[in-house]
Amino acid sequence: MKFSEIGEFGFIESIKKECITSLKGVIKGIGDDCAVFGPYSGRVLLFTTDMLVEDIHFLRDKLTPYQLGWKAIAVNLSDIAAMGGRPLYILISLAIPAKTNVELIQDLYKGMKDICEHYTVNILGGDTVASPDKLIINISLIGDAKEEEVIYRSGARSGDKIYLTGNVGDSSAGLKILKNEISPPNSIGSHFIKVHNEPEPLIETGRIIATSGLASAMIDLSDGLLSDLGHICKESGVGAMLFRSKIPLSSELKLLASRTRFNPLDLALSGGEDYILLVTVHEANSKDFELLFKDKRPSLLYLIGEIREEEGIRIVNDDGSIEEIDIRGFNHFIS
Amino acid sequence: MKFSEIGEFGFIESIKKECITSLKGVIKGIGDDCAVFGPYSGRVLLFTTDMLVEDIHFLRDKLTPYQLGWKAIAVNLSDIAAMGGRPLYILISLAIPAKTNVELIQDLYKGMKDICEHYTVNILGGDTVASPDKLIINISLIGDAKEEEVIYRSGARSGDKIYLTGNVGDSSAGLKILKNEISPPNSIGSHFIKVHNEPEPLIETGRIIATSGLASAMIDLSDGLLSDLGHICKESGVGAMLFRSKIPLSSELKLLASRTRFNPLDLALSGGEDYILLVTVHEANSKDFELLFKDKRPSLLYLIGEIREEEGIRIVNDDGSIEEIDIRGFNHFIS
Repeated sequence: MKFSEIGEFGFIESIKKECITSLKGVIKGIGDDCAVFGPYSGRVLLFTTDMLVEDIHFLRDKLTPYQLGWKAIAVNLSDIAAMGGRPLYILISLAIPAKTNVELIQDLYKGMKDICEHYTVNILGGDTVASPDKLIINISLIGDAKEEEVIYRSGARSGDKIYLTGNVGDSSAGLKILKNEISPPNSIGSHFIKVHNEPEPLIETGRIIATSGLASAMIDLSDGLLSDLGHICKESGVGAMLFRSKIPLSSELKLLASRTRFNPLDLALSGGEDYILLVTVHEANSKDFELLFKDKRPSLLYLIGEIREEEGIRIVNDDGSIEEIDIRGFNHFIS
Repeated sequence: MKFSEIGEFGFIESIKKECITSLKGVIKGIGDDCAVFGPYSGRVLLFTTDMLVEDIHFLRDKLTPYQLGWKAIAVNLSDIAAMGGRPLYILISLAIPAKTNVELIQDLYKGMKDICEHYTVNILGGDTVASPDKLIINISLIGDAKEEEVIYRSGARSGDKIYLTGNVGDSSAGLKILKNEISPPNSIGSHFIKVHNEPEPLIETGRIIATSGLASAMIDLSDGLLSDLGHICKESGVGAMLFRSKIPLSSELKLLASRTRFNPLDLALSGGEDYILLVTVHEANSKDFELLFKDKRPSLLYLIGEIREEEGIRIVNDDGSIEEIDIRGFNHFIS
């Protein structure tokens, strides 16, 4: 069935079931001019949005509609994770070419609903409109946290340790495989594609860090390690030193690198879309912070460097030499 | 200057000034993963979103970038007005073709900032991405109200009076003039174009109605009078009767109709984008309700019909005959 046959309202009818995964606090979801929820007291709200445009952020033949729906929500949840918050309420705007199959959009919503259910997020409504040619997805997300729990980009101080909560570079390798820029050994290609197409937002990790009160700054890696660390440095008025040998690479990425001519560190530093957390921690808190991750299996915490007073990002090579890094991350307009 | 030259981050730098019009409650606006505000207590939050797509919702040569920015925010504010709420916080997502002039986007933001300042709304952030060809705007808006003030679509009951807070059809006439489907007398063309391109969201009117506690249901007219009244009827499980002679038409629309072959009532009933409020009021409250508008200049309140138990919308013609109405409003996918 084509979208032009079912129409906007028919479509809304078809997708509005299962949008509420927890009734608590929801006064009105889909079906009115605005969604209404609350009342609130004693907590602050987190409000974020992300737009995904076909042929810019995704290629329709490189992931399933289900994965696209999952990922569109995941990248927003990751922003809430990066503040240490709980995700709560979502609005979904879709611009859909009239020739699009309704089944495709329903699969898209299935992916969205599944990830929302997984993280107990309520879809409260949105806007569904026509598009001349490209599929456009905009997600708006509200979360909350105790005011004192929220972790900003601006809190990093000289001497702080820099941690990552997972490996970097796999997602970027997945994109290169999807674009046929790398030919992986058969056994590991699907690993990278899965990491790229089905990111897992680190909500629970973000909450553990936030409630511990031990982090000085936090960000999720969406643009790439150097670019996102650069955001922390800029907002905090500091610089950073990274240890080249400490950048965490998956065994799959090392294997891939050994079979191809790509330098895995290039993907790790500038690749983007890792959706893990970069955390800075005052040196005095670093031991307690590391203890938070001790009981985790797998133990996903890597010390990769230190915040420095001097601006800029430098990297310490294995031979002890230091090089200034040219910060390049994913920039939507400068290629 | 082209957008490809300034880049995403340069652009964000260039527009992030003046986004905060009132510091009260704002903990973090532009510059982090999420915006943070609050804490809240005792009030409920209203959360709405709207997407505007080039060549679907607007034609670039038919309104200025400033007007486009104004209108993109206005249609969202109108949704808050329709619940009786106060608008508070906004996120702006833009997908911008790389060849777009930065000045155009800055003018767009000027329109957005001016209307936000006018209604004391804070722009807290957003997402700026590339687009292959079309300009896409998505606005997410949070408002609040006391829980008992909020007016839903679902509260209309048989016997309730139906009111409009302004004229209908002018915006639709403006669109037809812009598309060269109507040639107006020189003296009045600009009136319709202004109504279409620079809608005024009725926040204050919505607040007066909400705080009075006298309305049973409310909606803003975006799809068209019949379509939006149809939403009220559907959500409330009722029907409606409209008096043809009571549908409020501006003197300009009457003049336009006398000079062209268009029936002004067609525009008034099915035109859309009026952004006035349709309000239903229990008969026992109707006199008090009308008093709310007595001191207004101009007095913008028109009694246009009554809610009925029988489903469907009927219209009473001037000769007393009654006809069943085929509900046609603006539907994005069925033409």
